[in-house]
Amino acid sequence: MDYFNYRDSKLFCEGVDIADIAAQVGTPAYIYSGATLLHHYGAMAEAFAAVDPLICFSVKSLANVHVLKLLAAAGSGFDVVSGGELSRVKAAGGDTTKVVFAGVGKTDQEIVDAIKANIALFNVESEAEFANISRLAAATGIKTRASLRINPDVYDPKTHSYTTTGKAETKFGVDIDRAAAFFAANGRDENVRLDAIHVHLGSPIYSPQPYVDAIGKLLPLIETLRADGLEINTLNLGGGFAADYEAGKSPLAVDYANAIVPLLAGKGLKVIIEPGRQIAANAGILLTKVLYRKAGGEKKFVIVDAAMTDLIRPALYQAEHFIYPVALAQGAEVPQQRFDYEPAGAVRRVDIVGGLCEGSDFLGKDRLLPPVARGDLLAVFSAGAYGFVMSSQYNSRPRAAEVLVEGESFRVIRRRETYDDLYAAELDV
Amino acid sequence: MDYFNYRDSKLFCEGVDIADIAAQVGTPAYIYSGATLLHHYGAMAEAFAAVDPLICFSVKSLANVHVLKLLAAAGSGFDVVSGGELSRVKAAGGDTTKVVFAGVGKTDQEIVDAIKANIALFNVESEAEFANISRLAAATGIKTRASLRINPDVYDPKTHSYTTTGKAETKFGVDIDRAAAFFAANGRDENVRLDAIHVHLGSPIYSPQPYVDAIGKLLPLIETLRADGLEINTLNLGGGFAADYEAGKSPLAVDYANAIVPLLAGKGLKVIIEPGRQIAANAGILLTKVLYRKAGGEKKFVIVDAAMTDLIRPALYQAEHFIYPVALAQGAEVPQQRFDYEPAGAVRRVDIVGGLCEGSDFLGKDRLLPPVARGDLLAVFSAGAYGFVMSSQYNSRPRAAEVLVEGESFRVIRRRETYDDLYAAELDV
Repeated sequence: MDYFNYRDSKLFCEGVDIADIAAQVGTPAYIYSGATLLHHYGAMAEAFAAVDPLICFSVKSLANVHVLKLLAAAGSGFDVVSGGELSRVKAAGGDTTKVVFAGVGKTDQEIVDAIKANIALFNVESEAEFANISRLAAATGIKTRASLRINPDVYDPKTHSYTTTGKAETKFGVDIDRAAAFFAANGRDENVRLDAIHVHLGSPIYSPQPYVDAIGKLLPLIETLRADGLEINTLNLGGGFAADYEAGKSPLAVDYANAIVPLLAGKGLKVIIEPGRQIAANAGILLTKVLYRKAGGEKKFVIVDAAMTDLIRPALYQAEHFIYPVALAQGAEVPQQRFDYEPAGAVRRVDIVGGLCEGSDFLGKDRLLPPVARGDLLAVFSAGAYGFVMSSQYNSRPRAAEVLVEGESFRVIRRRETYDDLYAAELDV
Repeated sequence: MDYFNYRDSKLFCEGVDIADIAAQVGTPAYIYSGATLLHHYGAMAEAFAAVDPLICFSVKSLANVHVLKLLAAAGSGFDVVSGGELSRVKAAGGDTTKVVFAGVGKTDQEIVDAIKANIALFNVESEAEFANISRLAAATGIKTRASLRINPDVYDPKTHSYTTTGKAETKFGVDIDRAAAFFAANGRDENVRLDAIHVHLGSPIYSPQPYVDAIGKLLPLIETLRADGLEINTLNLGGGFAADYEAGKSPLAVDYANAIVPLLAGKGLKVIIEPGRQIAANAGILLTKVLYRKAGGEKKFVIVDAAMTDLIRPALYQAEHFIYPVALAQGAEVPQQRFDYEPAGAVRRVDIVGGLCEGSDFLGKDRLLPPVARGDLLAVFSAGAYGFVMSSQYNSRPRAAEVLVEGESFRVIRRRETYDDLYAAELDV
């Protein structure tokens, strides 16, 4: 569910008319629904309540400081993958003791900053990284704490190969058959308390089964490690929980929890989860305006003022986002679902593309749309996660504004960039 | 050719030791050779001299203001695809009367700004765009000038489909069989002088033949248009000229010119070309540092401090960049070519990857490298074009510094971003 809905043929975010935002902020713009973010966070917290989870929102999915502030106030911890993301959590007033730090390429400076911020856990990805964190903790004089990221090799994902991270032969983590040796070598380190296990199986994962399978492999390992006298008190199940891109076809938080929680209750394990897209994806739209319509060969194109620089998921992952006009004709049918929607009456099959000089620059291909004209507004749905955060200034395009809606009001939470922003760092040398 | 060469087992850019730049500027960093940029620009100008070309450097390939300044001083015009790029040309002190403006999604503001800057030509992509430019020129009270972008449909490219732009059924330009009707309707417009033809066949194009084929289709069209009393005085052949990614395997400027120039001499046509990657690609390297080595399953990984956020071409286009250490062991063999290089002696086959939490985050796969250790510097070659310009702050990673080498000296031409740069626009609201 989300709080983007049509009222009298006009798209609203919560109590705010999207067209009013366009009039004041311009396009392209990302618009987030605060209530949707909090709803999804709350659903996650409630579904996993029986195991008293630490929910660490995945900052890389939607990193705006004001969004982090909203989630921090709701009690969220944070999953960060860089010093920049840790800095964002601090800027948002987030609790750094509820931060887990993942990533295969942590630099010395990032590690030291995180140790000093007293983060909850480093998710360690390799022997070399563990040795480095231990060395830096010793140098800093502050004992820190880590989980080992293990590849349980359970998941033959149907997701795009680029977002698959839980199989063997990746750069991520340590294979499960090497985990016991890793703990034997490092489980009693003086500088880093290694008492936790981390997995991340891929993203998005449209079924609880891979988590169940992974837990089935990890619990015997944990028993073995405990029998060897090692303390293992935390299991971080990672993220990958699917977003509701297709309106009702993806598992909800409670569906994952119903499968996972019974396996972990009473095992003496603190549970961490790192949801990103499940909380953020359908809490945001990318708002864009029609610039031109044209025919090219057999194809019809709607050229809009957003581009792959604003939303790269279609080009990079062949991701599909539902796209529909913000204002419908009087009496027109409102889309009943956010995907493969075929409204009755006049529609055209079109490619919705940006203005970049690249064939990859499309937002949607072969889509059914009511007739649209120059100046019409289109909403690209489910763009809250991995949307703005992946945007670039390619073609020297200033990046979009970000807007947060809360109830009847909205505010700009990131101003639109200017031409000066593009090259200020070049003149400032 | 380029001016990145090993001396006594150390990589130099012109007269500067790359390791010295790393020590002062840090990593990751883009390093450009001014002499290489000017060499390639000069080779293009010389090769096409017989048709007195206007060479419009493709700003989208490498947009740094200081690079544009260097090329402007050498006489270059500029191919821009956005108001942001036009603003960059102005900031560089470039001559806006030598600017051509391409792109299917020009906004009203961009069009008005370009009219007022008295640019040479709009490359018009559709009927709707032409009508809009004419309307805005009338409103501005300044007559402007345009070429029609035509799809000659000659080229079945072997390049990645995303960078193919010259076939029918694209969002770009007007199909050649509709060109005469377009000129009949608009060739006598009062606000826009339409007296030029533009093509862009794709990129990169590893043979002069597609250009020859396109000219073969365009010259009869031009004769027909002239017979109808229309003035056609300019032919813009676009870009797509291949870069020397593979050291000696790609055509040089003179190879293209030898095939093209004889067809156009004496035809009463001003010739425009829009080279980007041929000038910029091997004029730049991405310099990065080894953070960790690790084994994952059967694979060996070298994890470096640059990532797909710095250079997205491998992930997005499956592009291959030669990667090699900046410092070789005493007496080690220097690479003889920039691709498929298999040095004698001990090498390892490794994936060179960044620290992002994405399987797509690699710079090179299955590469032969001498053994490397933590802290070693690696050069990612031929990264000057479509390198920094496509970089993003995904994972909240500050973008790299850019450095320009000229002879024995170097200077930072874009400072490294800071954490504050990541979210200043979020606090400034």
